[in-house]
Amino acid sequence: MNYFMRIAFRGRDFNGTQKLKDKITVQSMLEEKLTSIFDENIKVKIGSRLDKGVSALDFGVNFKTSIEKVKPNKLQYVLNRLLPNFIRIKECREVADDFNARYDAISKTYLYVIERKVENPLLIEVCWHPIFDFDIETFRNVSKLYVGNHCFDFFGSEEEKDGKILSIEDVWVEEKGNYVLWRVKGRSFLRYQVRFMVGTAYEIAAGRTSIAEITSRLDGTNKTTVHHKAPASGLILEKVEYDFERSENLAKE
Amino acid sequence: MNYFMRIAFRGRDFNGTQKLKDKITVQSMLEEKLTSIFDENIKVKIGSRLDKGVSALDFGVNFKTSIEKVKPNKLQYVLNRLLPNFIRIKECREVADDFNARYDAISKTYLYVIERKVENPLLIEVCWHPIFDFDIETFRNVSKLYVGNHCFDFFGSEEEKDGKILSIEDVWVEEKGNYVLWRVKGRSFLRYQVRFMVGTAYEIAAGRTSIAEITSRLDGTNKTTVHHKAPASGLILEKVEYDFERSENLAKE
Repeated sequence: MNYFMRIAFRGRDFNGTQKLKDKITVQSMLEEKLTSIFDENIKVKIGSRLDKGVSALDFGVNFKTSIEKVKPNKLQYVLNRLLPNFIRIKECREVADDFNARYDAISKTYLYVIERKVENPLLIEVCWHPIFDFDIETFRNVSKLYVGNHCFDFFGSEEEKDGKILSIEDVWVEEKGNYVLWRVKGRSFLRYQVRFMVGTAYEIAAGRTSIAEITSRLDGTNKTTVHHKAPASGLILEKVEYDFERSENLAKE
Repeated sequence: MNYFMRIAFRGRDFNGTQKLKDKITVQSMLEEKLTSIFDENIKVKIGSRLDKGVSALDFGVNFKTSIEKVKPNKLQYVLNRLLPNFIRIKECREVADDFNARYDAISKTYLYVIERKVENPLLIEVCWHPIFDFDIETFRNVSKLYVGNHCFDFFGSEEEKDGKILSIEDVWVEEKGNYVLWRVKGRSFLRYQVRFMVGTAYEIAAGRTSIAEITSRLDGTNKTTVHHKAPASGLILEKVEYDFERSENLAKE
């Protein structure tokens, strides 16, 4: 039996999502609770690898059990009773055996919340407060340069360079009073990619570097990694779209 | 010289607003920083006394200095550099000598943020998550019973009973997705009054007690204090209106 769950969690309480020895991570906390519920060793597959400090409002995981069927609704209820309230199970459902929370994700939308002038102490932990003022139109326009198919090797971690072309479906910049919401949607991202993308666009919009920081990396003429990484705290995985039908159709064939 | 400031702060970081020996409070933190800036002993007058854990998005204070004039803009900037980011100075201005942040407040609006189903771990610390489900229409209707002039002695702390009539200008209940926003506006409130008001309305809306919990206290037939106190964490002092002209006109006369 393969269970899929959508969860939400607060980044500051975890050392990232992936299991790490002796550290509290999203994967290890879920495995511990599920293992105690099912009384068998449960391995959780995570849909995304998020850095320490990054939050999620929609994060997919799946795991398999060999034992008797537990109703998804019931499992969701029991898990939410066992977990601390900074991590919540929002949905739980049965999926086809070959469904994988990582590979069946069609798209991911990340949100950066930027507070331009710190006035709301209640939200400081989920916002980024850049030091310099920046031009919103420039921020929007240069962010649009990322849209399309590009090699993002120079916006990723040093270890991951492989020349692969990744697709950014769209980038939106929305102004809401004192806040700027920066969103990016794509199928997959390299480690640190979103933080480098928003950090570089901000540096250009703040007049601290030129537009070539983006263009020369995207066309491959500059083969050094950008170094403008926005902090983890303002980053939220906001939405993940899944293709539940693919594996269900495969199962029927 | 009399300075007025509007500030915002996160309740979880303070032991309330009023000075307490050996504890971090809003008043003591401001006095400490202002004393170091002006190099004389500054006494801060606070506009409201908020319980430990209650946050504010708009909280008025005033204080007097004997020394040379410091521009309000400059003072705001310097203070925000010295203060941690869970407390922010939003406005600073000079006011008439007899202006008092407590007595010149015309109205205060308190907001309770209620999340009915915990799904957003990013906001758990500024919301109240009641255990029982409740009927929103009943919650709205019974909350309206508070509007008008009443003696709130049985919705306040035990020490404060004095038969004084207080005026509640309005109560609003707004539903926003998973959230219920409960607001009350009035000139002054007894200690615990807002927490008792919202807590009692919720108990009735959850079908756990009768409407007499409110009516019998407001008409004085029941002389026991209600015991349904909502937690401090969901409570926010959202807006304070001031009469700046009163003291300025007095000064001109």
